[in-house]
Amino acid sequence: MPVNLKPIDNAQLAPIAGVDLSYACAGIKKPGRKDVLVIRIDKGNTVAGVFTQNRFCAAPVQICKQNLDAGVQIRALVINTGNANAGTGESGRQNARAVCEALAKELDCLPEQILPFSTGVILEPLPVDKIVAALPTRQTATWADAAEAIMTTDIAPKATSRTLDIDGQQVNITGIAKGAGMIHPNMATMLGFIATDAAITRPVLNQLVKEVADLSFNSITIDGDTSTNDSFMLISTGQSGAPRIDSVTHPAYEQLKAALLDVSVELAQAIVRDGEGATKFITIQVEGGRSVAECKAVGYAIGRSPLVKTAFFASDPNLGRLLAAIGYAGIGDLDVDRLELYLDDVLVAKDGGRNPDYKEEDGQRVMKQDEITVRVVLGRGLANATVWSCDFSYEYVKINADYRS
Amino acid sequence: MPVNLKPIDNAQLAPIAGVDLSYACAGIKKPGRKDVLVIRIDKGNTVAGVFTQNRFCAAPVQICKQNLDAGVQIRALVINTGNANAGTGESGRQNARAVCEALAKELDCLPEQILPFSTGVILEPLPVDKIVAALPTRQTATWADAAEAIMTTDIAPKATSRTLDIDGQQVNITGIAKGAGMIHPNMATMLGFIATDAAITRPVLNQLVKEVADLSFNSITIDGDTSTNDSFMLISTGQSGAPRIDSVTHPAYEQLKAALLDVSVELAQAIVRDGEGATKFITIQVEGGRSVAECKAVGYAIGRSPLVKTAFFASDPNLGRLLAAIGYAGIGDLDVDRLELYLDDVLVAKDGGRNPDYKEEDGQRVMKQDEITVRVVLGRGLANATVWSCDFSYEYVKINADYRS
Repeated sequence: MPVNLKPIDNAQLAPIAGVDLSYACAGIKKPGRKDVLVIRIDKGNTVAGVFTQNRFCAAPVQICKQNLDAGVQIRALVINTGNANAGTGESGRQNARAVCEALAKELDCLPEQILPFSTGVILEPLPVDKIVAALPTRQTATWADAAEAIMTTDIAPKATSRTLDIDGQQVNITGIAKGAGMIHPNMATMLGFIATDAAITRPVLNQLVKEVADLSFNSITIDGDTSTNDSFMLISTGQSGAPRIDSVTHPAYEQLKAALLDVSVELAQAIVRDGEGATKFITIQVEGGRSVAECKAVGYAIGRSPLVKTAFFASDPNLGRLLAAIGYAGIGDLDVDRLELYLDDVLVAKDGGRNPDYKEEDGQRVMKQDEITVRVVLGRGLANATVWSCDFSYEYVKINADYRS
Repeated sequence: MPVNLKPIDNAQLAPIAGVDLSYACAGIKKPGRKDVLVIRIDKGNTVAGVFTQNRFCAAPVQICKQNLDAGVQIRALVINTGNANAGTGESGRQNARAVCEALAKELDCLPEQILPFSTGVILEPLPVDKIVAALPTRQTATWADAAEAIMTTDIAPKATSRTLDIDGQQVNITGIAKGAGMIHPNMATMLGFIATDAAITRPVLNQLVKEVADLSFNSITIDGDTSTNDSFMLISTGQSGAPRIDSVTHPAYEQLKAALLDVSVELAQAIVRDGEGATKFITIQVEGGRSVAECKAVGYAIGRSPLVKTAFFASDPNLGRLLAAIGYAGIGDLDVDRLELYLDDVLVAKDGGRNPDYKEEDGQRVMKQDEITVRVVLGRGLANATVWSCDFSYEYVKINADYRS
């Protein structure tokens, strides 16, 4: 079961003026399951996104990038689960376009004004006929429905809201995400969508989506596998009435960024809490590096090591595995004698070896918790980074050995 | 159980003139278990090694490097299991030296003429008193005993021999190795030792050990974790009577290298076949890359992906996971439309997507085998590389969750 993941409550999820949601059950993988979501957006919006760095990026990712680059007014996002439409070549792109065309006809807009997203199994043809047939059967969705409609192996839906005040005007932010497996940065979620009624110009939104992604969805790992379909989208409808944010020096920029980051970090952590087979939530803080990149490299080496992850699963303070992971993280001139390793408040290692005052029972106490912070002090600079990860259980193997059956 | 790993037969293991072996039961982890091995070598030998790239390299690795660099005549190698003496700082180095001193006194040589090796749990003090006390209790060992004495979580001992003819003179090569977990290149084995009675100068041996390691122990992965203790040593006693190989252009160099490589590849593959929890042996051939490095990167991305490995475990032809791994292997300008992916002789993907002629039952048939070859044709150059890996099972999690208990 997800680790300390609060159930979502639709009453707590703020509607976003200018966005309406609808879902359908297309029977892509199983009948009667919400597997198609449409996020329709009023004109006057701005939309920005970041996408997987995987060279085998999915057909819908390719179409999304094209449509966003074309600079047209986006009118809707359409998401299906159960099939990733990845590794599908030219026919995959045709299928993604066919979905856009069908929805565009209904919404009376151009296909290029639709952004398509898919998540699910790779290398199988998209059942485009089922999706197109289901589109007219859509029902009005709440944000809670929307969060549910994008799930694959997720156990729980993931959604959250924040409200802030800009110039005396209430601004709402609501986001949903799905994850569970094939989770590693660039992008680190299969799918994340955040909408706000704040008004934000496209260049500012482009900047925001990158900054926010790096500190949230690009800071998590479950299995070290970067998906073919990862996409994170920011939607700004501008209908709150608050003044338009048109530059990064705008007085409300940092305030809005903090609120968006809050939503993104909560969703990114929710993906880890609901990581396939996860029983523990691990925060890895790396401090005192020469660059954020090297701090992240250390965080990811720890966060993706199967040996570290199985030790967490077993609540076994086999902490030498942490040192081994730090040692192979790729910092060629790391001075291990300056390094400190903490498990919560317990100093485990210093001066190149075990802290003489470290007691196994202290390590054991922390390892038994379901939320654990690993803190690595590199002692070579001023940069920091935080990575979130989970443990590795029998259940992970079971889920991934059974995924398609 | 190990995948198609033939039991070793001591009668098939060639003695190496100039090497004698002895073991002791020091009770490091469990009483009555062979856990100390001494490889004594006659004077006139040459020894060369390659070691882990992990920054947290173990104390014995540091001492080994110092002693090899000092250029003294090596007289013995001493190996203990049950404790890695890694992450142990200055006291770890003192402990490793104490073991060398005790053995040097017995063998009437300098401590610097002894090379120490340790394998086992990290971050715990070496029980140096137990080891020193056990040294005088040593019994004569066969190569089969030696292979057994260096095991940790290995299920089966690993040893093999080859015989070749150099200038009418029979030359023997015998090697042992241990692996099982924390297996990823740089070096990719915990410990490997190969001895030959061929005569090889130190500079040639230094070259040989690197070339051979790259194509064997540095081409395997089990869990993607690079150990703190990995060491691979070549020992040449020169007692075969065959002419001394003093340059890489010597007529017998390539012949000897091929035989050494044969032994190394068999041992490296044995480590994978006995990988923790392994049920399948996977050969990943990457062809048509611009460099060996990028071919290896693709091989390792596939070989260490938990999603790929669990699909192999499940015999599930969920082959999109292979494309995803290729896509995130770090080749920024990879043209996925030129790529071909084969499972044994079955062409799975081409032209950026699924081969139209690919049938699920063909993939299924290959996935059910316990030996599978993944062939990736990158279509961008002339370089090739092969990586060996295994699947990821419940048993892997069980072994590593229980390792210390």
